[in-house]
Amino acid sequence: MSLLYINLFTVFVAKYVKDLKAANASDEQLKLAFNDLQVATQNLERQRLLVVTSNEFRKYLLDDLLYKHYFFSNSFEIYGGLTRFYDFGPLGAEIEANLIECWKKHFIIEEKLLQLKSPSITPEAVFRASGHLKRFTDFCVKDTKTGKLFRVDHLIKDFLHNQLSSNDLSKEIKSEYLNVLYKLNNFSKDELNELRKKFDIKSPHTGNPLTDVFEMNLMFGFSMKHNSKAEVYLRPELSQSAFINFKKLFSFNKSKLPFGVAQIGSAYRNELSSGTGITRLREFTLAEIQHFFDPNEYSHPKFKNVEEVKLNLYSACNQMENKDSVEMSVKEAVNKNILSENMAYFLARIHLFMLKIGIDPRKLRFRQHMNRELAHYAVSCWDAECLTFRGWLECVGCSDRSCNDIKNHLEASKAEFIECISSTNSSNLKDFVDECSEKDNECEGFNFEKTLPCVIEPSFGIERLLYSIFDHNFCFRKDDERKAYLSLPLSVAPVICCVLPLGSNYEFHPLLKQISDKLHAAGITYDIDDTRKSIGKRYVRSDEIGIPFAVTIDFDSLIEPHSVTLRERDSIKQVRVPVNNLIEILKNLSTESISFEQIEKLYPQFKGQVHSKETIKTAVKTHLC
Amino acid sequence: MSLLYINLFTVFVAKYVKDLKAANASDEQLKLAFNDLQVATQNLERQRLLVVTSNEFRKYLLDDLLYKHYFFSNSFEIYGGLTRFYDFGPLGAEIEANLIECWKKHFIIEEKLLQLKSPSITPEAVFRASGHLKRFTDFCVKDTKTGKLFRVDHLIKDFLHNQLSSNDLSKEIKSEYLNVLYKLNNFSKDELNELRKKFDIKSPHTGNPLTDVFEMNLMFGFSMKHNSKAEVYLRPELSQSAFINFKKLFSFNKSKLPFGVAQIGSAYRNELSSGTGITRLREFTLAEIQHFFDPNEYSHPKFKNVEEVKLNLYSACNQMENKDSVEMSVKEAVNKNILSENMAYFLARIHLFMLKIGIDPRKLRFRQHMNRELAHYAVSCWDAECLTFRGWLECVGCSDRSCNDIKNHLEASKAEFIECISSTNSSNLKDFVDECSEKDNECEGFNFEKTLPCVIEPSFGIERLLYSIFDHNFCFRKDDERKAYLSLPLSVAPVICCVLPLGSNYEFHPLLKQISDKLHAAGITYDIDDTRKSIGKRYVRSDEIGIPFAVTIDFDSLIEPHSVTLRERDSIKQVRVPVNNLIEILKNLSTESISFEQIEKLYPQFKGQVHSKETIKTAVKTHLC
Repeated sequence: MSLLYINLFTVFVAKYVKDLKAANASDEQLKLAFNDLQVATQNLERQRLLVVTSNEFRKYLLDDLLYKHYFFSNSFEIYGGLTRFYDFGPLGAEIEANLIECWKKHFIIEEKLLQLKSPSITPEAVFRASGHLKRFTDFCVKDTKTGKLFRVDHLIKDFLHNQLSSNDLSKEIKSEYLNVLYKLNNFSKDELNELRKKFDIKSPHTGNPLTDVFEMNLMFGFSMKHNSKAEVYLRPELSQSAFINFKKLFSFNKSKLPFGVAQIGSAYRNELSSGTGITRLREFTLAEIQHFFDPNEYSHPKFKNVEEVKLNLYSACNQMENKDSVEMSVKEAVNKNILSENMAYFLARIHLFMLKIGIDPRKLRFRQHMNRELAHYAVSCWDAECLTFRGWLECVGCSDRSCNDIKNHLEASKAEFIECISSTNSSNLKDFVDECSEKDNECEGFNFEKTLPCVIEPSFGIERLLYSIFDHNFCFRKDDERKAYLSLPLSVAPVICCVLPLGSNYEFHPLLKQISDKLHAAGITYDIDDTRKSIGKRYVRSDEIGIPFAVTIDFDSLIEPHSVTLRERDSIKQVRVPVNNLIEILKNLSTESISFEQIEKLYPQFKGQVHSKETIKTAVKTHLC
Repeated sequence: MSLLYINLFTVFVAKYVKDLKAANASDEQLKLAFNDLQVATQNLERQRLLVVTSNEFRKYLLDDLLYKHYFFSNSFEIYGGLTRFYDFGPLGAEIEANLIECWKKHFIIEEKLLQLKSPSITPEAVFRASGHLKRFTDFCVKDTKTGKLFRVDHLIKDFLHNQLSSNDLSKEIKSEYLNVLYKLNNFSKDELNELRKKFDIKSPHTGNPLTDVFEMNLMFGFSMKHNSKAEVYLRPELSQSAFINFKKLFSFNKSKLPFGVAQIGSAYRNELSSGTGITRLREFTLAEIQHFFDPNEYSHPKFKNVEEVKLNLYSACNQMENKDSVEMSVKEAVNKNILSENMAYFLARIHLFMLKIGIDPRKLRFRQHMNRELAHYAVSCWDAECLTFRGWLECVGCSDRSCNDIKNHLEASKAEFIECISSTNSSNLKDFVDECSEKDNECEGFNFEKTLPCVIEPSFGIERLLYSIFDHNFCFRKDDERKAYLSLPLSVAPVICCVLPLGSNYEFHPLLKQISDKLHAAGITYDIDDTRKSIGKRYVRSDEIGIPFAVTIDFDSLIEPHSVTLRERDSIKQVRVPVNNLIEILKNLSTESISFEQIEKLYPQFKGQVHSKETIKTAVKTHLC
C-alpha cells in the first residue's frame, strides 16, 4: 500500500463527506457513511503500520512530511515543473541558512579563511584551461529512436539490482554481478560499452536499442547575446575562481602560505541521473574551501588538535577487494600512509562539522575514490558519505588537487601569477622603495619559480547535507508509530521555540505579546502558532518541523505570578516555569549551557491545568489575577 | 594629472632604483638618482593635491583604494576579464556578508518574513506570463557597420552633457537640452528615435550611422542541452518565484494576510550601459521583499511605529516641473496622498535601514518613477537613490506591483492558486474532516474569488548599496589630505579590531596569542597585522580597510599587569587599557553600549611608550616582568 493510495483515499473521503453535506443528507445517512469510512480508514492504518518499518516507506513518509510543511518543493510547479530544480520554502530556507551559518563558524572563523565571491557565468577560456571543457563529462547512451539520454552506469546498476533481487541466480553469476556493482565507478568508456553489450541493456520504458557509450559534458553553456564571440558557461564548481585569483589572494594574505579560501554559492550541472528530490539538482549550492600549501610541507599546523578523531574509512583498496570500511583515528591513518596529514586534518574537521549539524556518526563514512572515478583535476579524493533511506549519499568531497589547476591557468593565461613588486599608488618614493624590499623579504619563504602551491579542497553539497540531516533526524514516537518528528539539533533547527496560546481567546493576548517581545529582545528565535487547532495537533506540527521547545500559555498562566509550560520535543516532557525565568532558561538551553534534564529537576513537572476558562473568569472577578 | 600617470611613474621609479642596484651603481650615483626622483615625486604630489578635491578624482582614489585592498576586482582578469562581471575579494565578501546579515535582522526578523529560495534558471512559461519576455527591454540602437549595440538614452545623455559643458549655447537651447535631460526616462521609443535624428547622433568612436531605435530583451536565455524544447532564462529579478508559489506561501502562513516573503539571491541582466565598476553588473545580488496584502486594506498594521520618519521625497510631478525634492514625514506624505500607507511604511523602513548601514541621510532621496519609466509590472515605484561620486545611484526600488503578477500567472498556468482544502496524509478521518472545517473558517476573511492580493515590493541592489556605503564613508584626514580612510559603521565593518604587535619579535608572541584567543572566544572579529611594516603604515592600512579599532601590543605591554593601546579609527585617539579589561571594552564598543569618548574618560591617553626594546630586556633581567 503506497502512500499515494492513502493520500488519494483521504482526499476522496473528504470529498465524499462534503458532497453528502452539500446534498443535505440526513444525520442518519451521514452517520452511516462516517462509520463505514472510519472502518475503512482503520484497515488502511493497519496496513500502513505493516509497511512503516521498511526503508522505502520511511523515505516516502519523510518526503511527505517535508513536502507537507513546505520545507521544499518542485520549482515552477504551476507550470509543470522543471526536472531536478527545487525551491526551498520558509522552513527549508531557514534551516539552510542556519546550516551555512554553522559552516561559516566552523570553517571560515575557526580556520581564518579568506572569503571570495565570484560570478556563476564564466568565460570558456577558464574551463578550457581547467580541463572541464574536455573532461567534465558523464558516460552516456542515447535511445536510438527517441533520442533520450541516459547515464550508462545507472542503467547497468539498475539492471544488476533487478537481477540480484531475483533468487534464481547461480552463486557464480551472483558474485560476478556483485563484483561489477562494487567496481562500477572504476570502469572506462570501453569497458562500460562492453558491459552494456554483454547484459543486452535496452532503453528503459521503450525497450529501444541504445547507442554506443559516449561522453557528454555536464556544463550549461550559452552565448551572451549581441556578443556572439563570448562563449560562457555556468560554473559546475566554485573553485576555479580561487585558482585564477591566486596571486591576489596570496598577496592579500601578506604573501604567506598556507592559507585557505572559502566560497559559498550556486553551481550548475546538467545531471542526467534518474534520482529525484533535492539530492541531485541541476542548480545547487556549494560551500568550498581551497587550502593552499607548500608541497614540501605536507604537515598541517593544527593537526595535533584533531589527531585523536576517529573516522570510518573506506579505502579504494577495501572497495576493490570487497572488504568493509575500517574505523581508525586520523593519527593512525597518517602513520599507516592511508592519509596525508593535510587530508587527514580536513577529514577530521569535516567529521566534527557533520556531528555538529546532526549527522549520525554511525551512518557516516569516508570513501576514497577509485582511480577511474577520480575527477580529472584530482590526484586523490575522499567523500564523506551519509547512509540515508536512499542509500549512501555523497555529501562532501575532499580532493587533493595538487598544483594542477594553478599550473594549467599559468600556462593558458600567460599571466605572471606571482609578482612580488606590484604597482602601487604610494606617492612617497622612500616608502615605496622600502615596501619593495620588505616584499622581497616576505617572498623568501616560498620560491614560486621552482614550486607551485598545492591544494586540498573540501567541497560541501549543501542540499545533500540538508537531506541527510532530515533523514538522520527523522524519528517516530515509541508509543505511536504514526507520530513522526524531526529531532533537529539546536544548531540547525528553524527556530528555538514555538509559542502556543491555548486558544485564540482575547485573555491570552497580553501575555503572548509580553513573551514574544521578550523573546525578540533576547534574540531567541520563535514561531507563534495561534491557529484554532487542538493543542495536541499543534504540538505534532511543532515536532514535525523540528522545533526543539514549545512554550504553552494556558489558563493557569493567567494567574499571577504568570507561568507557562515548557515542553521538550524529543522527550515530550513538560515542566511549568515562571514567565520571569523563561528567557533565561531558553537562552541557556539554546546555548547548551544547561540541559532539559537539569531544568526538569529545578521546576515542577506539568501534569495538567488547575484552572479552566470558567474558573479563571471567577478568579478574575475575585481579583486573584 | 590622472592617477594612471602617478601609478606609472611610481612603477617606473621602482624599476629605475632596482636597475641601478642591479648594475652595481655606486652609492653616489644612487644618492643622486634618489634625490632627483624625490624632487620629481614632490612635484607630482603637489599636482595631485590640487585635483584631490574634485569629485572625479575622489572617485578614482576610492576605486584605487578598493582595488588595492582587493575589496573587489574584475572577474577573470588573467583571461582579459568579462565586461560587467566583478569578484568580491576577502574584504568585499566579508562586508557584503555583514550587509546581508543586517538586512536579515532589519527585515526578515523584524517583519517576520517568510524566507524562500528558488533557482536562477527559470522556464520560459514564467516570463511569458509575467510579461518579461515581451517587455523587459531597453531602447537600443546598433552601429550599422560594426553591429555594436548602445542604449539610445545613454547616447542622448552623453551628447547633451557634452553640449551643455560648452559655454556658447543660447539660453533657449540650454533650457531645451536641460528639459530633455530631466525627462529622458519618460520618452517613448518613437520620441527617442526623433531625438536621435534631431541631434544627429552617431556611433561613439567610429562615427558610423546608427539604426532606428528598437527594443532589446535584457534576459540571458539558453536551451538546456539534450532537451532542446526547454527554453530557459536566468532570472532578471527574484520575485516571480514568490508569485508562482503564492498558494503554498499563503497556506504556510496559516492562510492569513498580510504577510511578506524574503528572497536573497543572484539575478542576471544583459546590461549595455557604458558605466564601469560594481554599480551596473550583469550578474548581481538582490534582496527582495514581496509584501502581500488585501487591496481593500491599504493601511499597514505597524505604520504608527514609523509615521514620524522624515524622507527626502522627489515626486514625479516635481521632476516633470523641474523642482527639487522635498523633505516631509511619511505621515504628512500619506495625508497629502503622495504615498499610500503600505508604500510609506516600507519607504520609512528602507530609510532606517540605510542609516543603519552607514548611508549619509543628506545624500539620500526617494525618487518616484515617471510614467513611462515604470517597469511593465509596476503601477507606481519609488527608488531610494544615493548621491555618490558617480552621481545619483538607484540602490533600492520599491514598487507597487498591484495584483498583476498573480493574475497573469493564474491565467497562464490555469492553476488554482487558492484551494482551502488541500490533500493531506492525515490518516484519521475525524481529524481530517475537522481540519477541513477549520480551514474553511480561516479563509473567510479574504475572498480570493473576488479579489487578488496586492504586492508592495522593496528590492535591494546589494552591490550598489555596498558601493554607496564605501562612497559615503570615504574620508580624508583633516591634517593630511593624502591619508584616506573608510569610516565604516560597526554594522558592516570587516572586523571589529586589528591587533598589531609592534614588531615581529618573539617577545610579543605569548601576549598576541593570549589576546587573539580571548577575542576568538568572545566572538569579537579581529585581524592580525604582524607584517614588518612600520606601525604607522599598518594603522594606515587598518584605517583604509575600515576597521574601527586597533589594539597595539608594544614594549610597555610586556610589563605586568599587561596592557595594550586601543586606537579609534575616526578620531585616531588612543588610550592605554589593561589586557584584562580589553575584551569587555571591545564587547561594549561593538554593541555600542559605550562610546569611545566614554572610554577616553576612563583610561589614560596614550602618548608614547615608556619602555623600548632595550629597557625591556633590562626589565626582564631584573624580574620586573
